[in-house]
Amino acid sequence: MSNFLEHINSPADVKKLSVPQLVELAEEIRGFIIQSVGKTGGHLASNLGVVELTLALHCVFDFKSDKLLWDVGHQCYTHKIITGRKEKFANLRHFGGISGFPNPAESQFDPFMVGHAGTAITTAIGMAIGEQLKAEKKQNPKNEEKNTDEIKIVAMVGDASIVNGTSFEGLNNVGLVKRQMLIVLNDNSMAIDATVGAMAKYFSKVRLSQTYEDLRKTTSNILEHMPVIGKSVEDAIERIKKSIRMALPASQMFESLRIPYFGPVDGHDIGSLIQLFEALSDLNHPAILHVYTRKGKGFSPADKGPTKFHSTGPFTMNGDTVELTSAPGKITFTKSFGEHLAELAEKDDKIIAITSAMCDGTGLMNFKTQHPGRFYDVGIAESAAVDIAAGLAKSGFKPVVCIYSTFLQRSFDHIAQDVALQNLPVIFCIDRAGFVGEDGPTHHGLMDIGYMRIMPNFTLTAPANDIEMRLALEFALNHNGPVVIRYPKDYVPDNSSVYASCSKPFEEGKSVTVKSSRQSKIAVISYGSTLTQALEAEEILKKEGIHVNVINARFAAPIDNKIISLLKHDKGIITVEDHSIACGFGSAVLELAAQSKQPINKIKILGSPREFIGHNLRNTQLFQVGINAENIVEAAREMAR
Amino acid sequence: MSNFLEHINSPADVKKLSVPQLVELAEEIRGFIIQSVGKTGGHLASNLGVVELTLALHCVFDFKSDKLLWDVGHQCYTHKIITGRKEKFANLRHFGGISGFPNPAESQFDPFMVGHAGTAITTAIGMAIGEQLKAEKKQNPKNEEKNTDEIKIVAMVGDASIVNGTSFEGLNNVGLVKRQMLIVLNDNSMAIDATVGAMAKYFSKVRLSQTYEDLRKTTSNILEHMPVIGKSVEDAIERIKKSIRMALPASQMFESLRIPYFGPVDGHDIGSLIQLFEALSDLNHPAILHVYTRKGKGFSPADKGPTKFHSTGPFTMNGDTVELTSAPGKITFTKSFGEHLAELAEKDDKIIAITSAMCDGTGLMNFKTQHPGRFYDVGIAESAAVDIAAGLAKSGFKPVVCIYSTFLQRSFDHIAQDVALQNLPVIFCIDRAGFVGEDGPTHHGLMDIGYMRIMPNFTLTAPANDIEMRLALEFALNHNGPVVIRYPKDYVPDNSSVYASCSKPFEEGKSVTVKSSRQSKIAVISYGSTLTQALEAEEILKKEGIHVNVINARFAAPIDNKIISLLKHDKGIITVEDHSIACGFGSAVLELAAQSKQPINKIKILGSPREFIGHNLRNTQLFQVGINAENIVEAAREMAR
Repeated sequence: MSNFLEHINSPADVKKLSVPQLVELAEEIRGFIIQSVGKTGGHLASNLGVVELTLALHCVFDFKSDKLLWDVGHQCYTHKIITGRKEKFANLRHFGGISGFPNPAESQFDPFMVGHAGTAITTAIGMAIGEQLKAEKKQNPKNEEKNTDEIKIVAMVGDASIVNGTSFEGLNNVGLVKRQMLIVLNDNSMAIDATVGAMAKYFSKVRLSQTYEDLRKTTSNILEHMPVIGKSVEDAIERIKKSIRMALPASQMFESLRIPYFGPVDGHDIGSLIQLFEALSDLNHPAILHVYTRKGKGFSPADKGPTKFHSTGPFTMNGDTVELTSAPGKITFTKSFGEHLAELAEKDDKIIAITSAMCDGTGLMNFKTQHPGRFYDVGIAESAAVDIAAGLAKSGFKPVVCIYSTFLQRSFDHIAQDVALQNLPVIFCIDRAGFVGEDGPTHHGLMDIGYMRIMPNFTLTAPANDIEMRLALEFALNHNGPVVIRYPKDYVPDNSSVYASCSKPFEEGKSVTVKSSRQSKIAVISYGSTLTQALEAEEILKKEGIHVNVINARFAAPIDNKIISLLKHDKGIITVEDHSIACGFGSAVLELAAQSKQPINKIKILGSPREFIGHNLRNTQLFQVGINAENIVEAAREMAR
Repeated sequence: MSNFLEHINSPADVKKLSVPQLVELAEEIRGFIIQSVGKTGGHLASNLGVVELTLALHCVFDFKSDKLLWDVGHQCYTHKIITGRKEKFANLRHFGGISGFPNPAESQFDPFMVGHAGTAITTAIGMAIGEQLKAEKKQNPKNEEKNTDEIKIVAMVGDASIVNGTSFEGLNNVGLVKRQMLIVLNDNSMAIDATVGAMAKYFSKVRLSQTYEDLRKTTSNILEHMPVIGKSVEDAIERIKKSIRMALPASQMFESLRIPYFGPVDGHDIGSLIQLFEALSDLNHPAILHVYTRKGKGFSPADKGPTKFHSTGPFTMNGDTVELTSAPGKITFTKSFGEHLAELAEKDDKIIAITSAMCDGTGLMNFKTQHPGRFYDVGIAESAAVDIAAGLAKSGFKPVVCIYSTFLQRSFDHIAQDVALQNLPVIFCIDRAGFVGEDGPTHHGLMDIGYMRIMPNFTLTAPANDIEMRLALEFALNHNGPVVIRYPKDYVPDNSSVYASCSKPFEEGKSVTVKSSRQSKIAVISYGSTLTQALEAEEILKKEGIHVNVINARFAAPIDNKIISLLKHDKGIITVEDHSIACGFGSAVLELAAQSKQPINKIKILGSPREFIGHNLRNTQLFQVGINAENIVEAAREMAR
């Protein structure tokens, strides 16, 4: 086995290698990623697909100054490995380690922190226009700014991201750029279910029509016709297009958008890729290079089932089989939701599940299997998911939109205009609400209470545990208006000591008191899964002789008036939520308190401060910002004084 | 002059007319719209373009049960006129009158309230899937639901809306529909500046290549090959496509998305349109009909300058010339912003203005003329506008994003991920923040303080008048992080009595006291343009012997700590803002107060309740929800007791 990787500390070291050496390096990197992700968990299949592509880009461009924008960003491991962060992979996505996404705070090779899909092209356009304006300024003799070399811009977009509305808005506006800007379309044909969306079908049709020989031929055609000194670039583009048009049905789509299209070519042929990038980097036009890669390449389990290994927890290899290291016996909120919904749908054929490329992640696999005719996956198109749900609700169905809190942000306007304004009974099941742990700041769901409670007509609820998940769903399915059900990326807690109170059916805007003491002058009011921390705090306080009531708020909109009336008699209330303090549940309590003119000067709000919290274990993040029993205890002690 | 319009009270009356009679009716309707909008103001050019198209649709479909979805919705006047709302046009967009947008509360012919672009296709998909599922259910013999006729679905989308990301996500997912669903692409080639976006250029190229004769030929080709009884629909589509493909370069785009495309045809030829809709309504496939219309047709001033008459105030006609009835001498916040920005850009060549099809509406016309190289309009693509700004900021520029509050909602996620998370110095100049008057609930900007203050790193500010607009811009341009500047659709107030205080430079998080009295125990704290109402209240109260301080908050994030410290000594504070109470400025004050353990019962929040407020005069809306001097006075009286 070769040992090139050991000596790679920067892209400069990669640039020194010959093509055969790079081929060996690619294999080493693949092995390194599999080993490393097996220990820490992380994104696997997508990273294994882009090893050669990443090496080739670094051989040609200089991303210390040139800009490489990864769409979504979870496929940047090779990039991180060769830009000096190899050693830090032992702590990938863990405290003190590196993030699983590009992050400018880590390295000058990462221009942008990203985690959502569809934004690489639009951001690249902004940067390209910026460089264009700088270049124009330099041509102005009055301006004396130092002349620097031209900065090249590369956007790397997958076939799952290019169908997103933002990508399309970018493609439609590429014409604003009058200089170099390369879009690499990394087409692994498996990023999403191949049956999702017309464009995926179109790509897949094109792909099936191409033989390996075709790809080689296309590559040489492009290289042969690229401009040499003294020849016009425009002319070259024309000649290339002409010579390969017949072989390129995919080019139609991009040609109608007036973007010069090259490809498709083999994304694992590192030698050709280097030549292609060299040729394309000299164009003074935006261009698209369509590249075929294989998601999960080199890891047989992922090669066979790439969606399973899209994002994985730690695992161990046993020959060709893989065993996931998972927590024993515990079930997650996601699983709880998925099971209850599938079951409820047995009896109610008006229930339709809709997701945007998160079928597995939102626990809908069972639903999909059991009710295939009532399951819709629209690809990475959150806006479409919400509007389709609105249309379905208008037709008398009960659509359930299943999207992570962070990704649902994309649909804020659609939720406001097409659901809230029409007062339609669409149910939003918001998974990954609150801190998400290892994925970090791009993926936290800390804003959804705020961005949903601001909308008229919406009822906001959050189950504390498994039994409440069922009850919240039953409530929502019988409610005549839009409802949010939010829950975290976590295991459902036991909460068995309070199951009696939690078993009461959900009534709009009604909280349940789960622990009460006649001696209590303090109420701890939890919204959603933080009930566990509230109960823990109650236990600790009881031992200290401080008696508190624990209230499970259940609703953030409307707020139970009972909560406010507590302020009349009690010393104070402590609200706790897995959300930003700004605009959150506690904030809603304050608004109602102000309106009710209650004589309180003791409302303590526990939640996340107005700042971005880095990747870490979810529990550590909660602890870090004070969403924990200890902090509740501290607040209660102070009030009890 | 004919007089058909007088006898049209429902689409049934339209259906009775012959084609020559419909042609006359169309002219009558055009005259009616011009007269009516001249008196009330409203959307003119777009409505004049779709008269024949609307009549033809109503001749073929029955929109009591069939669904007609207008994208954006401002082109629905003919639809409203012939669906029993003709008489109500005297009060169009005014109290007691009808809305300028579709509204189910007005008529069963309006299935959806809309006002934002890009959502008709996605909503139509939802409805079509709904009907599809109902039909499948009926085929199930176990199900005994009554068999009803099939409901037809039509989405009417303009060429400006089809480039929106949401439209594209819809087009990409049309394949989910396995039944009839007709998309009418209303291409008036002038909806936006023809130079904006690749797709607009593409349509425009196609349009230029078509003669009137071509359009006629295409129409007969479609009609000739449409299926007759006993022939398969799929087969017919294939034959039509084959027979007209050569003439149809536009079809490439939609064919790559696998949507059967028909056209382009003449959108003013009512007889042909009826035949085409009849033929297309029988397809058991989704399909696109591409129609050419002329925006502003029949109104020579609009015909010549359609963008000027897109949305107009009242006007009077004098032969062929038009005079707008406008308020004398007053300048708007929009104009104030536009002039200051254009002027500041003279001295600072890093300032770039970006808008999404709102150049005129956001006051950027001067900027565009004076700094053409630093002005970018991306079309109706708010997400792209924000990301391009982020890219520009990363490249060292000072991008200023100019979008109405209601439309900026589309970019919520992009603002969070690509601006806040990167802490980039992008300036958001949010016009139409607060109540917008005649456009009504789809257009109010009542959520932006909430949806922006929830994001870390953002500084939120709002100028109260013209001098503060300048100062806020100067502050933002010198601030190293993202800044929001919000202002309403209103005239800048005089505020001359407090110009001295308002002339102090903006300092981050610092309010200014504009009226103070030693005797005062109450502070009225205004955020932004409501300073006028606060000052009015102060005058009234002074006469009653109630002395209040008036504080111009200037910032909603961060909140001035001084505001909170007032609570220590004063009887109370009254906050006032042109925004939703939920998550607004007052809510932010409460959060800070809770953190400081100050008595919260002394805070009274004035703002909009959590409900949708209908179209009306802006001042009436403010009055209606209590954002006015009288209500401030009332609150102060109560506190003073």
